[in-house]
Amino acid sequence: MDSFNILFTSAGRRVSLIQSFKQVLTSLELSAILVTTDSQKNAPASFIADFQVQVPRVTDPKYINILKTTCEKYKIKLLIPLIDTELHLLAAHKRDFEAMGVTLLVSSIKTIEICFDKRETYKFFKKMGIQTPEILDAEKILTDPQAQYPLIVKPYNGSSSIGVTQVKNAKELKFFKDYIPNAIVQEFVVGQEYTLDILVDFKGEVRSVVPRLRIETRAGEISKGMTVKNPAIIAAGKKVVESLPGALGCITIQCFLLPNGDIKFIEINPRFGGGFPLSFQAGANFPRWIIEMMLGKEPEITIDGWQDGVVMLRYDDAIFVTRETIA
Amino acid sequence: MDSFNILFTSAGRRVSLIQSFKQVLTSLELSAILVTTDSQKNAPASFIADFQVQVPRVTDPKYINILKTTCEKYKIKLLIPLIDTELHLLAAHKRDFEAMGVTLLVSSIKTIEICFDKRETYKFFKKMGIQTPEILDAEKILTDPQAQYPLIVKPYNGSSSIGVTQVKNAKELKFFKDYIPNAIVQEFVVGQEYTLDILVDFKGEVRSVVPRLRIETRAGEISKGMTVKNPAIIAAGKKVVESLPGALGCITIQCFLLPNGDIKFIEINPRFGGGFPLSFQAGANFPRWIIEMMLGKEPEITIDGWQDGVVMLRYDDAIFVTRETIA
Repeated sequence: MDSFNILFTSAGRRVSLIQSFKQVLTSLELSAILVTTDSQKNAPASFIADFQVQVPRVTDPKYINILKTTCEKYKIKLLIPLIDTELHLLAAHKRDFEAMGVTLLVSSIKTIEICFDKRETYKFFKKMGIQTPEILDAEKILTDPQAQYPLIVKPYNGSSSIGVTQVKNAKELKFFKDYIPNAIVQEFVVGQEYTLDILVDFKGEVRSVVPRLRIETRAGEISKGMTVKNPAIIAAGKKVVESLPGALGCITIQCFLLPNGDIKFIEINPRFGGGFPLSFQAGANFPRWIIEMMLGKEPEITIDGWQDGVVMLRYDDAIFVTRETIA
Repeated sequence: MDSFNILFTSAGRRVSLIQSFKQVLTSLELSAILVTTDSQKNAPASFIADFQVQVPRVTDPKYINILKTTCEKYKIKLLIPLIDTELHLLAAHKRDFEAMGVTLLVSSIKTIEICFDKRETYKFFKKMGIQTPEILDAEKILTDPQAQYPLIVKPYNGSSSIGVTQVKNAKELKFFKDYIPNAIVQEFVVGQEYTLDILVDFKGEVRSVVPRLRIETRAGEISKGMTVKNPAIIAAGKKVVESLPGALGCITIQCFLLPNGDIKFIEINPRFGGGFPLSFQAGANFPRWIIEMMLGKEPEITIDGWQDGVVMLRYDDAIFVTRETIA
């Protein structure tokens, strides 16, 4: 059989994710080459791959052709993009890659457009009858003497919680609505925050849903979290992803569980999230299942076939290299 | 010989630091028990120690007595505090611990007071003729039509870059000087940012200085960095720490190297910094040298006896436990 070569684009700090694929390929006794791309020569994840390719930024007109050349050169079977900003471009070139024998783990353009702009995400939730915090009109609030605070101000196109700000009064709202680029104002929700890792197979079926409670975050990413087998959250998350037009692969969604049991969704990222290693540790073996599906083996999966109550406590580890290596 | 037991207080995420002590104790063939304290049961560093003790917050009146009891119980020889907020309290009780046979790796109260309040740090730099960015009067700037931006607004008692904000105009300055608690306004400096790990021995001598260039930060802590053997920075850092009244152990200082060669210091933290694992990897074996000094062996150290151009590329690793473990 051919080597099961995988390309991870914009690999950055995704060391654990790539290690999990490595581990799975070994346990399946598949020969494979793992390749990463990144715009920087000092991306930690590059140093655990077999080959690393430095590429221009996603916005560079040559970007997509360089990825195609890389796929050809390394006989790539599966391409897994790891940041939001290249998903749309890749989805637009999906057929080209498929013609080359490369499977893209990328959702449809429509799904990506819903996820990338939080105003579109809000409209999607509303249309599908999915509960979500209200998006509010800043000017109306500022002229309303009865307005309630706190509120959330955030960019409609942000990622990693960059710019997400709680405003406590009209003065702060007035300032931050102009200070934060592309700001929207959102109802403030009090509740437990969950991230869900959801696997969608190549037929568009939701196969696994893992809610992870955010115990603590750092720089917008989970630093302490726990898997929680809550059937209501699992069912709600499944419904969200089934409502998307053409989701594929690992879809990462965020929601709040309110004290009254309501579940309000705020965000969808149609790619592996930074906290996925917790789901993997709990037995939600998305890497293995994706590979098995591609090989035509039907993996045995139940929607909650993973371990409840697994806690991830993150700390900084490091790869050490020399100045010359990253020059 | 007695067991060389070490207590790390407020251990948090300091997994690598504790591992480096473990490694050194093994290589010195010393028997030892490593104990951590933290106010939370889910501190990752607790899980690599031999014993973990959950303690109240530093502000709790019982805190210091609980530490003393912990030292007695585990026959602690060396206590290493890892967050700023307990340094003053520990320094005030230094004699009590010494009477119990516990060495505190803590500087004098005077040094801690200089470091903890950035207005005091500024005065100290000025008095000692050490270059530092100017602290400015917000009201004067706001009434000065010639005022230059950007400027930095930050809390005088902050840590981990929390609240450090670049303001680009009078409107932003006016807002953030009130929004950020305990705000001071600082001259904006353009240059390469360095963190220095500096070892001061029990006689008060500076023994090792390691400048680490900050290539990238995340949540205020270095995520990519490199050791740089720059003699001017080493000499300047040595002078800063020698000017402190009673520094001891690992002192972490921040400075900017300006394009014209000037070195401007901004901050001193009299404890092991989060980025120390890079210096350790480069051969600045502070853990070994501290232990050897305590055992009366004079370690062979030269001020720049470590490897230049070592690059640290950080990523998230994790400790996995079950819900019951942290309940």
